[in-house]
Amino acid sequence: MKIAEFEKEIEAFQKSGDYKEPLAFGIARVDCAKTAPDRVLQATFAAINYRENFKSAAVFQNALKLCGESLEISGAELIAPISARFINESLNLFEPFIDEATGDAHKNVQVLLALAKIGADSLADYRVVFLFEDVAPKSVEAVYLKLYALSTGKAALRSLNLDGAFGVLPNAAWVGNEPIELDWLRENEIELKLRGEFPKIDYVDKFPRYLQHIIPADNTRILDGSKVRFGAHIAAGTTIMAGASYVNFNAGTTGASMIEGRISSSVVVGAGSDVGGGASILGVLSGTSGKPITIGKNTLLGANSVTGIPLGDGCIVDAGIAVLEGTKIAIDDKEAIEIAKINPSFHVSGEKTQIVKGGDLAGLHGIHYRVNSQTGQAQAFRSKREVKLNVELH
Amino acid sequence: MKIAEFEKEIEAFQKSGDYKEPLAFGIARVDCAKTAPDRVLQATFAAINYRENFKSAAVFQNALKLCGESLEISGAELIAPISARFINESLNLFEPFIDEATGDAHKNVQVLLALAKIGADSLADYRVVFLFEDVAPKSVEAVYLKLYALSTGKAALRSLNLDGAFGVLPNAAWVGNEPIELDWLRENEIELKLRGEFPKIDYVDKFPRYLQHIIPADNTRILDGSKVRFGAHIAAGTTIMAGASYVNFNAGTTGASMIEGRISSSVVVGAGSDVGGGASILGVLSGTSGKPITIGKNTLLGANSVTGIPLGDGCIVDAGIAVLEGTKIAIDDKEAIEIAKINPSFHVSGEKTQIVKGGDLAGLHGIHYRVNSQTGQAQAFRSKREVKLNVELH
Amino acid sequence: MKIAEFEKEIEAFQKSGDYKEPLAFGIARVDCAKTAPDRVLQATFAAINYRENFKSAAVFQNALKLCGESLEISGAELIAPISARFINESLNLFEPFIDEATGDAHKNVQVLLALAKIGADSLADYRVVFLFEDVAPKSVEAVYLKLYALSTGKAALRSLNLDGAFGVLPNAAWVGNEPIELDWLRENEIELKLRGEFPKIDYVDKFPRYLQHIIPADNTRILDGSKVRFGAHIAAGTTIMAGASYVNFNAGTTGASMIEGRISSSVVVGAGSDVGGGASILGVLSGTSGKPITIGKNTLLGANSVTGIPLGDGCIVDAGIAVLEGTKIAIDDKEAIEIAKINPSFHVSGEKTQIVKGGDLAGLHGIHYRVNSQTGQAQAFRSKREVKLNVELH
Repeated sequence: MKIAEFEKEIEAFQKSGDYKEPLAFGIARVDCAKTAPDRVLQATFAAINYRENFKSAAVFQNALKLCGESLEISGAELIAPISARFINESLNLFEPFIDEATGDAHKNVQVLLALAKIGADSLADYRVVFLFEDVAPKSVEAVYLKLYALSTGKAALRSLNLDGAFGVLPNAAWVGNEPIELDWLRENEIELKLRGEFPKIDYVDKFPRYLQHIIPADNTRILDGSKVRFGAHIAAGTTIMAGASYVNFNAGTTGASMIEGRISSSVVVGAGSDVGGGASILGVLSGTSGKPITIGKNTLLGANSVTGIPLGDGCIVDAGIAVLEGTKIAIDDKEAIEIAKINPSFHVSGEKTQIVKGGDLAGLHGIHYRVNSQTGQAQAFRSKREVKLNVELH
Repeated sequence: MKIAEFEKEIEAFQKSGDYKEPLAFGIARVDCAKTAPDRVLQATFAAINYRENFKSAAVFQNALKLCGESLEISGAELIAPISARFINESLNLFEPFIDEATGDAHKNVQVLLALAKIGADSLADYRVVFLFEDVAPKSVEAVYLKLYALSTGKAALRSLNLDGAFGVLPNAAWVGNEPIELDWLRENEIELKLRGEFPKIDYVDKFPRYLQHIIPADNTRILDGSKVRFGAHIAAGTTIMAGASYVNFNAGTTGASMIEGRISSSVVVGAGSDVGGGASILGVLSGTSGKPITIGKNTLLGANSVTGIPLGDGCIVDAGIAVLEGTKIAIDDKEAIEIAKINPSFHVSGEKTQIVKGGDLAGLHGIHYRVNSQTGQAQAFRSKREVKLNVELH
Repeated sequence: MKIAEFEKEIEAFQKSGDYKEPLAFGIARVDCAKTAPDRVLQATFAAINYRENFKSAAVFQNALKLCGESLEISGAELIAPISARFINESLNLFEPFIDEATGDAHKNVQVLLALAKIGADSLADYRVVFLFEDVAPKSVEAVYLKLYALSTGKAALRSLNLDGAFGVLPNAAWVGNEPIELDWLRENEIELKLRGEFPKIDYVDKFPRYLQHIIPADNTRILDGSKVRFGAHIAAGTTIMAGASYVNFNAGTTGASMIEGRISSSVVVGAGSDVGGGASILGVLSGTSGKPITIGKNTLLGANSVTGIPLGDGCIVDAGIAVLEGTKIAIDDKEAIEIAKINPSFHVSGEKTQIVKGGDLAGLHGIHYRVNSQTGQAQAFRSKREVKLNVELH
């Protein structure tokens, strides 16, 4: 078969009523519960596709049809088993690409070739997964596919519907990359402990860790795997230190940055920014107003500071202070004029000192947030220092 | 043998001078030092009994007597070896319960059955352990039994005597669940390193981690096993995040809660409370006055706050502030009246603004602790917000 | 051979032009890249020598010469392969010491004896490494030898030139003690994931962890291996807690201390000091002026405090406050006089209240740093409390 034939055949299938263009798709290996072998605990995708590679999607859907799988494409997600025939039918169609399927080329073909090597006897743990719409995910596989889209950067942070994901994902004890049901541990606790075979449980959570599924860029550092939940996006050049850092799912960085504090769920930090040791950026899951926070580029959050409002580029929050939506902040008239120069939306009151709330400064650039150490007054200035990362480190 | 016979036989033994009612007991598997095989480094209990199951205690003591073990029950603790005969004698008595010894029923019988399977050749690493009084523990086994009682919630936090536990527990390098003496590593360092067999040491401590011994409830999450020391109690529904959290031994939560900060030794946090990212609650081990702190229900400690006094229910400590025993706090007359309404013990001075010390507010409910961002003044208000956990997460 | 002969032979070699006295040397086992077997990822030294054991250095250099290795001793570092002949020639010379080479005696001889056991077939992964000058290290082996010198305490913290070390060390995914190239993981991602053999990556960094290379003293505790980077020095009796702590390379403690906060790169903390939960001490790598900070003895940094200036002995920084170079701090005249009594360099202005900058108080002893909770004013007092560690814990 030649490429032209492939194109023709695929186009024909795509025009048929059997094809449905997916939002995302891929082949996953699943880990199932020991006590309930049909309950999926984790889905590991060797390669994912997000708003791309629709011809590969057509190959997979076509192969499923040939295998006699009932293709329920009317819903938002489709999860189908993988058989030796599925692999063969797919590879037959992909034949013109097999030789060049190495490195970054034709990842879906590489996945099929690897599955063919594994062999027909042990395909029970594999699934082909399609998402057709971005609605609340219903299956573990669908949640994982979305977390992969976020973590790989194929989908932007906060762009996907993850409503109910906490309900869909099972809580598990993680031993290395393997999830184990707490139930099974309880049932076997006595034997395991007395035999000295009780596993070393790394953690108990519904989400796995980022490094269990994602290989970072060469210039990225994550000094402790426990610090980044799967579903976070860690841009190339980012360093996540091991002290008081944490990056939750659906949160992360969009460029090289130094992270020694907490990036809560829904928070996005821009390139060149430095989140100091122990600094907290409030998220949407617990105890806040629910508006997601974006931190701009080249912004410095000092050690042990707390930021509860979005910040623009080139801001500084001094070490140890808290800037929240309701924090009253004083701005002298000269500083107000300087701030307005780079933030046209900022209203200069004309008073000698205007008092604003933190929320009023949301997203403004070039502001230095301080607390006067002689009066205890929170103040905002036009920032004079440029925030620069240490080029040796990023 | 029927249950009636069992009861009769046990009652007779319990009335004899050979029986002593234990505070706690159980069978443990011990890890011993490589360089000193009689030095116990860790004791793993498959099931423990605390102020309960005294008939099982009688079975074990009776079996020890039949085995000819010298039953020194006059002291506070008794540790005896386990033999095949001990197992047989115990199971003979337990015979009426063997068939129903599954799941949560008859854990002590299940332990014996598992030991019987392991076989007589390899019983050197097992001990039956009794605590008769709650005094300072003298053996590693006794400390572990108490830590189990605390972590399982069978004994309330701060209810047990752990004086001198740091002296009793040996410091060890932990490789997975196995403790290794630092001495042995030093003696073998050259060979291990040159052969590429130097172990991956997870940590060096006298205490193991909570997850090495305790299986949490299904709705509990501990995102990093290093964050909870054995001897902590993590109530069902609690989430321990991985950023700047830590829960020390003899500390923990008594209900579903969100923990992103530090619960020092002796601190207890109530249901529905939220310990924000990096928040510190001071403990008794280092640098404080030594009074243990209790945090009430539905209380919020803001990110990077520091709490050095007990708090009642429904309190809020703002992000980034410190409320210590000596902190001077201003309360306006209207707020003082509102605070007194739900805290009858609170004295309203009648002044426009009364100044109190943090310690004077210890344990009061419904107080919002703030620092005025324009004057730097620490202030207390009657809290207006209700603290609620995100139900999706707990 | 007798010791006298050994001495004579070595002295003769040392006087020859072939010998060069090293700053540091040792034999390392190296981990190489899977994709580029000549690229060193990690060097593990079983024993190191720093400004000591020059006769052993002469033995090694002499053996290298006899093996025909080109001894390029004109540069700052020399890395040579190890052969069976190298081992034999060295052991021939060391013959008088072989019997007594156990425990802490003759570590270099012990290394050779262990290598002899490993055998000639598998010596490809071993190197003898010499550093002759303390200049910017050029090889992975040289960086590791310097980090060993710092972590073992043979070289004082901040005494060695590590310029460019970030550039020399390769970034790697660490699986236990083994570094794996990110490239190799990417190339094999599909196969590894589909086979369920994707490794559990503990972290991604250029530096390994302290506990992978160093065995702490018996009274030292490191509650989480991820908290201490290799190249840190953790003095005997130090406890590193697991909450928000971190000790970077070229930083650490010089005596027993309690560390629950962050010791950034270049920071040194003295004996008896207590770095409270979440406390940050600023380092030189990111966002500071670049002057390394020393903290004296018996000094207490309160929970969530931030320290940006050097502190002397017996200081207290209150919980939650920040003392930075530019922080304006008020000192009453009586306190100023008391401060001057133990700090002759301190200038008493004579004013009722003198206002100084944090940087002006750098290194002074016995100062209590506070923020007045009624006025928000940062203040310095002569400290009245003595900082004492809990002797049970250290």
